[in-house]
Amino acid sequence: MPPTDGPTTRLRLDVAYDGTGFAGWSTQPGLRTVQGELEAALATVFGRVGPAPRLTVAGRTDAGVHASGQVAHVDLTPAQVAVLERRRGGAAAVDPIGALAARLDGLASRTHEIVVRRTSLAPPGFDARFGAVWRRYEYRIADPASVHDPRRREHTLWHGRPLDVDLMAAVAEGLVGLHDWAAYCKAREGATTIRELQAFTWRRDDEGVLVGSLQADAFCHNLVRNLVGACVAAGQGVLPVGRPAELRDEARRGSEFTVVPPVGLTLTEIGYPPDDELAARAERTRARRDREDASGRP
Amino acid sequence: MPPTDGPTTRLRLDVAYDGTGFAGWSTQPGLRTVQGELEAALATVFGRVGPAPRLTVAGRTDAGVHASGQVAHVDLTPAQVAVLERRRGGAAAVDPIGALAARLDGLASRTHEIVVRRTSLAPPGFDARFGAVWRRYEYRIADPASVHDPRRREHTLWHGRPLDVDLMAAVAEGLVGLHDWAAYCKAREGATTIRELQAFTWRRDDEGVLVGSLQADAFCHNLVRNLVGACVAAGQGVLPVGRPAELRDEARRGSEFTVVPPVGLTLTEIGYPPDDELAARAERTRARRDREDASGRP
Repeated sequence: MPPTDGPTTRLRLDVAYDGTGFAGWSTQPGLRTVQGELEAALATVFGRVGPAPRLTVAGRTDAGVHASGQVAHVDLTPAQVAVLERRRGGAAAVDPIGALAARLDGLASRTHEIVVRRTSLAPPGFDARFGAVWRRYEYRIADPASVHDPRRREHTLWHGRPLDVDLMAAVAEGLVGLHDWAAYCKAREGATTIRELQAFTWRRDDEGVLVGSLQADAFCHNLVRNLVGACVAAGQGVLPVGRPAELRDEARRGSEFTVVPPVGLTLTEIGYPPDDELAARAERTRARRDREDASGRP
Repeated sequence: MPPTDGPTTRLRLDVAYDGTGFAGWSTQPGLRTVQGELEAALATVFGRVGPAPRLTVAGRTDAGVHASGQVAHVDLTPAQVAVLERRRGGAAAVDPIGALAARLDGLASRTHEIVVRRTSLAPPGFDARFGAVWRRYEYRIADPASVHDPRRREHTLWHGRPLDVDLMAAVAEGLVGLHDWAAYCKAREGATTIRELQAFTWRRDDEGVLVGSLQADAFCHNLVRNLVGACVAAGQGVLPVGRPAELRDEARRGSEFTVVPPVGLTLTEIGYPPDDELAARAERTRARRDREDASGRP
């Protein structure tokens, strides 16, 4: 919470971005990041009023990963809220918080690489990170049987060898459940690798592009890209269908498959409980993951 | 036809590209063009064997315009065909012409901005340009009611004001037919502006993006982008629905609407008659448009 002389107002931001040109979500010195661009836009809106607004995000996406349904929150002081209201002074009927989206949109990215879809008053107890119940990602792969659309090359992996979607779907189905994913995550001291993979499916879309859809309570670092990598190896016939689950249970990774690149990956949706359960949920998650990474990083 | 000591072999190329990084299809000195990249790739394949291959195309797209269904042809000498066959010497079962697509693909664009979807032996009488019966284009517009997907920003026009798709569809329907499109084309000396607009529709897709679909025997220069511009003006409520057809019939353009930018435009399909009518069709078209631009330029 920023220092304030009154209760802060929490806003929810719904954001989409093309990750190609960004070094990921999280601010890093000297690098262009989504968080960095959005916080700079917020700083422009509020000028010298109050402390610099900081964003808390549901899914800290890596460099090159895209988002269509990212969610973040920011806390504003009463003086900052007053800035929004002052700006729209003339038109009393206009919702000053809702109108912020368009302004951030224009400030954060003239190139439309970032879109602020919506800014809204967060319900009581809302926390973009600790309140999230699940995260959903999508991974797109064009193999030789797919229509290759050069207009979509920056959010689709182009894979040179044919993939069997049925084998991939069978692998995915066999991986679902509450497990320790140590074999599929980049290790991180003090962080648990136990996650519930709630859904994992593969299909071909109208153009024959393979679309993987994954949902989990949270994803540890590189989990999505390793799960997709295991499916690709099986779909290509170089890994038996049952092997990815065995590797998971043996908690060892080895070199039987490789992680897929970020290009095909998009964070599509964040799930939250009903408004009246928000505060309890955030409290539980915060307590459980107090000293670990609960960022939902894929 | 290139100089040769035997009959030439005509190949058909089916090509897709993201036009963002190109100064259009047609070769221009010092500029990066799709034709230029593909002809350089062909030159690499054939080395010093025979004359440098030249492409003839169905739709000479402008700078920034995309294609998912472009068609071109190239004539090869017997010595050049022998190069293809020699290269695949070991495997007699492989189709050397069909295999050319993958090689051109790799040579023309490591970045996948250009995709050579298929290379095939053209049927007798086939001419990519003069044999085409119709060209089809698509134009994508995201207005405030659309989901704005930053991953697709380079092939979608982002329009700040709300558009009424029913008004746009009504305008489109009223424009269909065989007409003189002088009011909608960039003038070009000696070229007719009479074209048959065979179909023109507007719909919103699953994400609320407005998709215009246009088909004509051929499009004179800037015709597609002016037709879309007229629909946008009507859809925004600043031009009466009947006005675009009036402007067409009065053969004057004025400033009642503006041409839309190339970003949203994609050449999606080229129509050819059945194989046994190809030669007759190409001959008729060539005779009729002998001294005019029949390039299907939008």
